[in-house]
Amino acid sequence: MFIPVIDAEDPRIADYRAVRERDVVGRGERFVAEGEVVLRLLLGTRSRHVAQSLLVGESRLAAVEPLLTDLPGATPVYVASQAVMDAVVGFHIHRGLLAIGRRASTPDAAALLAGLPERALVVALSGVSNHDNVGGIFRNAAAFGAAAVLLDGASCDPLYRKAIRVSVGASLITPFSRGASSEAMLDALEAERFEVLALSPSGDRLLSEVERTPRIALLLGAEGPGLAASLMARAKTVRIPMAAGFDSLNVAATSAVALYALTL
Amino acid sequence: MFIPVIDAEDPRIADYRAVRERDVVGRGERFVAEGEVVLRLLLGTRSRHVAQSLLVGESRLAAVEPLLTDLPGATPVYVASQAVMDAVVGFHIHRGLLAIGRRASTPDAAALLAGLPERALVVALSGVSNHDNVGGIFRNAAAFGAAAVLLDGASCDPLYRKAIRVSVGASLITPFSRGASSEAMLDALEAERFEVLALSPSGDRLLSEVERTPRIALLLGAEGPGLAASLMARAKTVRIPMAAGFDSLNVAATSAVALYALTL
Repeated sequence: MFIPVIDAEDPRIADYRAVRERDVVGRGERFVAEGEVVLRLLLGTRSRHVAQSLLVGESRLAAVEPLLTDLPGATPVYVASQAVMDAVVGFHIHRGLLAIGRRASTPDAAALLAGLPERALVVALSGVSNHDNVGGIFRNAAAFGAAAVLLDGASCDPLYRKAIRVSVGASLITPFSRGASSEAMLDALEAERFEVLALSPSGDRLLSEVERTPRIALLLGAEGPGLAASLMARAKTVRIPMAAGFDSLNVAATSAVALYALTL
Repeated sequence: MFIPVIDAEDPRIADYRAVRERDVVGRGERFVAEGEVVLRLLLGTRSRHVAQSLLVGESRLAAVEPLLTDLPGATPVYVASQAVMDAVVGFHIHRGLLAIGRRASTPDAAALLAGLPERALVVALSGVSNHDNVGGIFRNAAAFGAAAVLLDGASCDPLYRKAIRVSVGASLITPFSRGASSEAMLDALEAERFEVLALSPSGDRLLSEVERTPRIALLLGAEGPGLAASLMARAKTVRIPMAAGFDSLNVAATSAVALYALTL
């Protein structure tokens, strides 16, 4: 349903107002998705969430129309000039394409894990609060076919706008849970018989020497503090060999290497 | 040599003025380095470049002093309040620690390669213009012990402030060349008997099946356009296996996986 909008103050597009400022305060059940690659996933069959509305620059309409074929007819697609779009959003939307999504309910870790097949690789994040890193980890998880991502309450929301963008939409299609303590996350993994591999520069076995088990959870912590000793003690600790004098990989890069090695 | 500065207009700290604006226009032979981890590398024995001056917040001075033991006595260390520092730089420097570096001369690709040992792994970048990606690739190159990074003229400067920061200083210690065309870069690699492995989702052999040769160059292109067909035709093309329906890794993540696999 195309709806022309000519006034940045139009209340029908109030959800798109001051996007950056509202990133900070949060949007509850809603989230903002931007750009063609991300919108294709949000509007596709693999998305776990739904588009509540779209805001499209009038010059982008022809390019965007193919994405809309499966959109329920009642979903409003607001069409505006670039100037109106930029004025509502508060910065220049050079991709000319935004959506407000409504998130599906987030399962807890136990419910999420209970639904997975007997063979499954998942990623578990403890205190990863940087949006770029969480987005990058979701992108890698999707690229290597991880079944789910578990986040503790100190890790950031994968549906934060920047995390979605950096994930190139992977956080819209990958099942995740979020909110429990890291300890409760490990409890749930142990109850479902996941072998927990804690990645750390001080891990005591090499990634290349890890034996595969049917259910594996890669446990990753924030750069800097790393994983708490109490969590490491409950896991097999694993390291990626590094050159002398430079023993640190970014946590998203670590996830790529570990997912590659465990899915070879 | 500690020099107190109490006035943001002090001409002695003019190099620190309006850091972000000058990122855009470039600084010629100079660059800006920020934060303790990066400064430790810039001031250490492995740095290829020199610090011309430092600007340190007075509250950080005690923490920073251990880094300065090897600093030539003539190098000025300007000490300012946080307020003066923020006013000069133009934004809040929460790490309280900046340096102006002077870059060493950049060798061309042929000269750089000629100085490498008989066994060497290098990374070659064609059109990688995103600072986060170049920074991430340098960090991975250092972590896995790559001997050098070659950048074509369309790739961005590894000593751009953000690239240094994302590399956590790796771009200060890793030899690199920059500026030639991608074709000239491949000419230089071939002349020095490097086996060029072009990473691409359409590569015709699996990364895990690549035979090691003494001298290997990993060739990476920008996301989106990828590597030009004319470059792929001159290389062995290699792919990282991906899950169905999501066949793209970020180029920095790609470099981490490939460097891991080739240094196992």
